Amino acid sequence: MEQSAAAKPIRCRAAVSKAPGQPLEMEEVEVAPPREHEVRVKIICTSLCHTDVTFWRMKDFPAMYPSILGHEAVGVVESVGDGVEEVAVGDTVVPVFLPQCGGCDDCLSARSNICSVVAYRPGGMPRDGTTRFSLAATGEPVHSFLSVSSFAEYAVVDVAHVVKLGPLLPPEKACLLSCGVTTGVGAAWKVAAVEPGSTVAVFGLGTVGLAVAQGSKMRGAKRIIGVDLNHDKLEIAKRLGVTDFVNPNETGEKTVSEVITEMTGGGADHCFECVGSPSVMAEAFQSSRKGWGKTIILGTAAGAAPVSISSSDIKRGRSVTGALLGGIKPKDDIPVLAHKYLDKELQLDEFITHQVGFGEINRAFDLLEQGKCLRCIIWMDGAKETGGA
Amino acid sequence: MEQSAAAKPIRCRAAVSKAPGQPLEMEEVEVAPPREHEVRVKIICTSLCHTDVTFWRMKDFPAMYPSILGHEAVGVVESVGDGVEEVAVGDTVVPVFLPQCGGCDDCLSARSNICSVVAYRPGGMPRDGTTRFSLAATGEPVHSFLSVSSFAEYAVVDVAHVVKLGPLLPPEKACLLSCGVTTGVGAAWKVAAVEPGSTVAVFGLGTVGLAVAQGSKMRGAKRIIGVDLNHDKLEIAKRLGVTDFVNPNETGEKTVSEVITEMTGGGADHCFECVGSPSVMAEAFQSSRKGWGKTIILGTAAGAAPVSISSSDIKRGRSVTGALLGGIKPKDDIPVLAHKYLDKELQLDEFITHQVGFGEINRAFDLLEQGKCLRCIIWMDGAKETGGA
Repeated sequence: MEQSAAAKPIRCRAAVSKAPGQPLEMEEVEVAPPREHEVRVKIICTSLCHTDVTFWRMKDFPAMYPSILGHEAVGVVESVGDGVEEVAVGDTVVPVFLPQCGGCDDCLSARSNICSVVAYRPGGMPRDGTTRFSLAATGEPVHSFLSVSSFAEYAVVDVAHVVKLGPLLPPEKACLLSCGVTTGVGAAWKVAAVEPGSTVAVFGLGTVGLAVAQGSKMRGAKRIIGVDLNHDKLEIAKRLGVTDFVNPNETGEKTVSEVITEMTGGGADHCFECVGSPSVMAEAFQSSRKGWGKTIILGTAAGAAPVSISSSDIKRGRSVTGALLGGIKPKDDIPVLAHKYLDKELQLDEFITHQVGFGEINRAFDLLEQGKCLRCIIWMDGAKETGGA
Repeated sequence: MEQSAAAKPIRCRAAVSKAPGQPLEMEEVEVAPPREHEVRVKIICTSLCHTDVTFWRMKDFPAMYPSILGHEAVGVVESVGDGVEEVAVGDTVVPVFLPQCGGCDDCLSARSNICSVVAYRPGGMPRDGTTRFSLAATGEPVHSFLSVSSFAEYAVVDVAHVVKLGPLLPPEKACLLSCGVTTGVGAAWKVAAVEPGSTVAVFGLGTVGLAVAQGSKMRGAKRIIGVDLNHDKLEIAKRLGVTDFVNPNETGEKTVSEVITEMTGGGADHCFECVGSPSVMAEAFQSSRKGWGKTIILGTAAGAAPVSISSSDIKRGRSVTGALLGGIKPKDDIPVLAHKYLDKELQLDEFITHQVGFGEINRAFDLLEQGKCLRCIIWMDGAKETGGA
């Protein structure tokens, strides 16, 4: 038997992506019951990340059509499949694109957050590759996305992909811990292990970059240099820990790395790339200090474009590394971040710049594309719509 | 006054490089007295490293003609310039291409071995850029090389570039610690910090690569995979710690990284590039394990060719770093390696495959180019010539 006896298909609304770059269409979908090791989650709210936008525009595989995007969310467990003991009906959970089986060499090692057992299968569930979504009207299967698909009122997620949280954290704050903020804070905490008194340069002040600044500040960095083309980011960046701002359009004859090298007397201790551009990755590397400078790559380059680094420069004691979800082990570390918010160590409120109801989800895409938004919370019940810019 | 009152110019033999790729010519040179912060060293023996061969062939800057190559050596201090207190006449010293001033931010930090004060000046001494060598017959200046120039009976070296050693270590063993062996052992010890039980892949089994194997064995690596095109390396590689051998010409349809990934069940924990080829650097990176695999670049790519790495692969928890002299701080760490040899923890004898007299120095180039040699010791007094292959 593959599913709980009580669980039946659910019909609900989902925002379906039907063609590259076209507005999502609100459809009635059928969400199958959770199979073994799966849970069905009633989504409370979700938010839009640049990775959703990247895939929304993408024409070819791994983009698939029709599909249900969305991978930052929080919800409540509605039903569980066989073999699920970690969570129960009624638990508040954050679904996460990165799995943690808990038993493989990687999950058991403090050095890795890349689970070896539960692997991503584009379009479907990680263990069997099939989808739990179909269009109610026609029965046509709808592909899932990043093992989450939170742009639906209900989603089926593998138990390796959910993190149980206590009831204290407001849902819109929990939602932020699902991907972007966790990636940035985690990178400063787990990957770079930023030291007190150190110097940090952050390339790209979107949610991930600002969360890097926030995480670096929490770790005691003395100087946090933000690099962004958009001056409007300055105020919020300061509130989240950025101490100096460099606009690449205003460095005159000098490159950004030359400016940062001068500002820091030799280069930053830690340089974070949060854009996903090979040229920015190279500039971040050039901004890192000889002897011990680290470059941490968090952005996703289109088409997996390679990073090109000088072998003679790297031999002067520099290093380049990268991480998914900021090196965070979801089930171990996201609850720690939740506590840090509740203890007022971690700022989250500033990241929520807009809130809309589910029916207005396409507006969230517009806002993010216009650079006017960090995170737009999309409330499934529409009750907490508070407008935006 | 810039020099010891007693020190006068010395006339002696030097092997002078006059044109790219041409045999060195034995000439009488004048070696000026050491200036402030400099010492003049009577070279006991020197050895040939691939970097010498690379520069010997190089047509353009930073290669300069005429010059005196050589940077692996041991000698005795003959005279000292003003301000030199660290060593005295009669001390045994190893000259090293990498300086350690002892007082800058980098020298004071455990994280860096890239001195910020004493900088390399191609062709001359680090502090004033001038050379202490000239041809005796004509007075024409002869450029120095890598702040050492050990292919001469006497050489002037900045005090930041010499390491004092006790008298117990035989000179030909001390000579090995000047560059190649230290680079490899140091990379395993200081840069990778190889853990007991870990898996290592070494690309290129020259002196540096075999010293990586030796250093990894000393650190308790369980499996040390050597990659080299030359099967003749196998026996000596085994004696120095290599447990498995991969010949890139014999992997059939598979790439070397595919073979290593299979052998190790996912990739090596530490991959060392000791060739200096961007394609080998990429292959080493591909051979590193997701989650925590490190690639350490030790080879020097011609023309500082860049390394190209996949940004999506590095985001799966991999890292790339590099080092000069294996991350070793010369004055602090080379004496430690000397003790490890005397305590029979570190093998050095196996690296000495050939020995010649100074007059036969061009034979050392032939042997290294033919791949028949790890280190050929070149004795300045010619007394210990023991032939070769």
